[in-house]
Amino acid sequence: MNSTQQALPRLIERLPPGRVMQDAAFGVAFESDGLTAFHQKPLAVVIPETTEEVVTTVRWCHEAKIPFVARGSGTSLSGGSLPIAGGIVIALNRLKKILSLDPVNRTAVVQPGVVNIKVTQAALQHGLYFAPDPSSQTVCTIGGNVAFNSGGAHCLKYGMTSNHVTGMKVVLANGECVEFGSDSTDAIGPDYPGLFCGSEGLFGIATEITLRLLPKPEKFHTVLVGYRTLQAAGDAVSAVIESGLLPGAMEIMDALSIEAAEAAVNCGYPKGCAAVLIVELEGPRERVEYETEQLRTIIARTDPFAEHIATTEAERLSIWKGRKCVFSAVGHISPDFLVQDGVVPRNRLGEALVHIQEISRDSGIRVANVFHAGDGNLHPMILYDGNVAGEFHRAEEVCSRIIKMCIDMGGSITGEHGVGMEKRDFLPDMFDAATIELFHRIRGAFDPQEVANRGKMFPAADAPSLSMSGLHPLEKQGVISRE
Amino acid sequence: MNSTQQALPRLIERLPPGRVMQDAAFGVAFESDGLTAFHQKPLAVVIPETTEEVVTTVRWCHEAKIPFVARGSGTSLSGGSLPIAGGIVIALNRLKKILSLDPVNRTAVVQPGVVNIKVTQAALQHGLYFAPDPSSQTVCTIGGNVAFNSGGAHCLKYGMTSNHVTGMKVVLANGECVEFGSDSTDAIGPDYPGLFCGSEGLFGIATEITLRLLPKPEKFHTVLVGYRTLQAAGDAVSAVIESGLLPGAMEIMDALSIEAAEAAVNCGYPKGCAAVLIVELEGPRERVEYETEQLRTIIARTDPFAEHIATTEAERLSIWKGRKCVFSAVGHISPDFLVQDGVVPRNRLGEALVHIQEISRDSGIRVANVFHAGDGNLHPMILYDGNVAGEFHRAEEVCSRIIKMCIDMGGSITGEHGVGMEKRDFLPDMFDAATIELFHRIRGAFDPQEVANRGKMFPAADAPSLSMSGLHPLEKQGVISRE
Repeated sequence: MNSTQQALPRLIERLPPGRVMQDAAFGVAFESDGLTAFHQKPLAVVIPETTEEVVTTVRWCHEAKIPFVARGSGTSLSGGSLPIAGGIVIALNRLKKILSLDPVNRTAVVQPGVVNIKVTQAALQHGLYFAPDPSSQTVCTIGGNVAFNSGGAHCLKYGMTSNHVTGMKVVLANGECVEFGSDSTDAIGPDYPGLFCGSEGLFGIATEITLRLLPKPEKFHTVLVGYRTLQAAGDAVSAVIESGLLPGAMEIMDALSIEAAEAAVNCGYPKGCAAVLIVELEGPRERVEYETEQLRTIIARTDPFAEHIATTEAERLSIWKGRKCVFSAVGHISPDFLVQDGVVPRNRLGEALVHIQEISRDSGIRVANVFHAGDGNLHPMILYDGNVAGEFHRAEEVCSRIIKMCIDMGGSITGEHGVGMEKRDFLPDMFDAATIELFHRIRGAFDPQEVANRGKMFPAADAPSLSMSGLHPLEKQGVISRE
Repeated sequence: MNSTQQALPRLIERLPPGRVMQDAAFGVAFESDGLTAFHQKPLAVVIPETTEEVVTTVRWCHEAKIPFVARGSGTSLSGGSLPIAGGIVIALNRLKKILSLDPVNRTAVVQPGVVNIKVTQAALQHGLYFAPDPSSQTVCTIGGNVAFNSGGAHCLKYGMTSNHVTGMKVVLANGECVEFGSDSTDAIGPDYPGLFCGSEGLFGIATEITLRLLPKPEKFHTVLVGYRTLQAAGDAVSAVIESGLLPGAMEIMDALSIEAAEAAVNCGYPKGCAAVLIVELEGPRERVEYETEQLRTIIARTDPFAEHIATTEAERLSIWKGRKCVFSAVGHISPDFLVQDGVVPRNRLGEALVHIQEISRDSGIRVANVFHAGDGNLHPMILYDGNVAGEFHRAEEVCSRIIKMCIDMGGSITGEHGVGMEKRDFLPDMFDAATIELFHRIRGAFDPQEVANRGKMFPAADAPSLSMSGLHPLEKQGVISRE
């Protein structure tokens, strides 16, 4: 019996019955997140029903020095909500109330377990919506969006989650409760809500989050353009940006992604394209109509192979259906795959795509590409068959080479999926030792015992006490792995 | 001879000649900032010419435990760049290079001593500009804008400085050099540049700052509307916001501010108004034309007393001239004045203005009001004559009552001028003890010795070692004061 098991009874007696689950079968549902290559059973799953129960649980973790990971729907793609050995999961799914919604000041205060799309559904009656739209928005929670500062197809225009969070109440990892920000964008001093957004669960648990809501655009103009080459699609993105237009979204899918989407949802994209570009303009009617003309002129100069303009909302949703399903659709063309997340400078997108094709050819591993083209955020999907000996390792190697390419091009190891477990050993490629040491000290200001999501974000070498069963040796290189 | 004087020779020998000024007459220029009610001579002023010299100076401060304040043009209105007894000033005015400007990625990398307007002047040749526009933009520096997360008339639409800084190199207060962020908005982990913006000089000195540039608007539509009551002007702001329009700027001036502006620059605002509202639309031509029609309809319903639409760029600048000169113009109608900075919820603006008028009547102290109406940020100017016995104290009392009103209404003690020295004792009215304690710990992660801008932002009781000569006893209440 280890220390957690010895300490657990003290937690159980402080909480109402039924909150602490120790059943191993139950734990299976929590042993992985969206990055299924990692898995680790937690010693217990705690399911609080009130903020006070969250505080009680975190205080117990702090006192007993038991690591915890807070979890919403577990859609993290970087292992961010993976438990560690000897640690517990705090599942926030029952904290799912929209506490208030103020249509005049355009704010909503929500609990962390509220599903992203539910905020928009509640706001729509007032003509408002919540802008961050991760592909997983029908299941992922606001708490997770805050932890990973999630983006989405429309973050080109509207920014990431941190641009839409103005205040929060937080249970720090030491069990103290604090409050940052307000419902205004005029904040006092440093941007503490911004510090908390993207902290990947290392600082504590946000129990109430104040979100900024935006007026729903009056009109959309959504166009799908097919190209004969990926390069042509990339060049079209540069042309749009250089014109001064700021579309709500600009997304590229390559031939393999299109094939997957067609197999999964029969989205009817034009046949024979090497790539499609989706551009969506949105805003007041006259403005969109004006920009539509500008866009038409720009696109005409990019030698398009095919073009489809949505004339109804149903057609618009049909265009988006192909794009939004891609991550799940890839299962139709490959038994296994890894999703990567990297950033290159926007003006080197074409070069990056050519390089990824070379890596794919070299390795004999197929790579399907979708990306938030407007901000240089790539999501290559590395396809492999786990039953073919050595394929998984070659897929890992491809992931690693793509991330190294992003670093070499002056980009970033993550655009929106986070560092989590997957990329922690790449952190020193992005920041020097003094900067990482500062990050450690800031973390220490929130969590001196390092109980909150221990083992994530910082290089494995910084967490020598971390015991994690079953990880592949390659995990040490920061490349994802599995048992 | 105190400890600074004993330690200074060790700094002088590490720097090239002429960098350390100990002449008391020279120090006079640095004994106050824009909040002249406070003054304190520094023991020395260091004027570094390179980043390396900044690092050398900060390291010496850390080793010798000598407090420092970094300073640009000293335009802070909250005492943020005021020296303290036994401390030095690090004047960054010679670090004024624009290191690079990338028109494709729309970024500029600048040193901290670059004057705000110089960035826009350099960017204009590429059709770009730097959005944050404090009233002091022709003199204030980017380093100061970062420290205080400065806003300006156009922050309604474009946000504060932190929304336009994507990366920075920093000398921490412990002398270490670190680097945050990048030239992309896709950042890794917490928003460290956002944490540094608004840290009021307590974390260290930013030596290179990466700024985001925006395309210059194709067209402006600037309208000045006169009203018979302040309330009517406030209601017009609500009507514009509720319509869904997002103007670049929305500013109100009351009768006394108008009187000051007329006396100073003869701006020709309509006679007999109780208030004027300036609304500026900006963006692509067709969009602005469309919004102009919307605005016309809204304004027509607000019972305007007079209306003036700028038809030329000269007329536009003439409208802005009155607004931008107000802080300096008030000298024409009052021998002395204090500028306050507070925030109320946008929808309680009218109520706040009525309350300020009551406070003014009660106290017999005139208050002139200008404000960034779109975001509820008030700048009351409290007029007094320092030669009339007791007037200064009554003016201070008015300041204090206005700030307490902002707190009671659920607003904030500062919109953009910062906490600095002026409002440090109000911090506990905005944050509870646990939250302030966390802020202390985060500061400790940057500056364990508390040498960087010691005595600012945190309540005086938290800095018992602070020795500051000549402060009035009322300073303990957080109300500004002078010898």
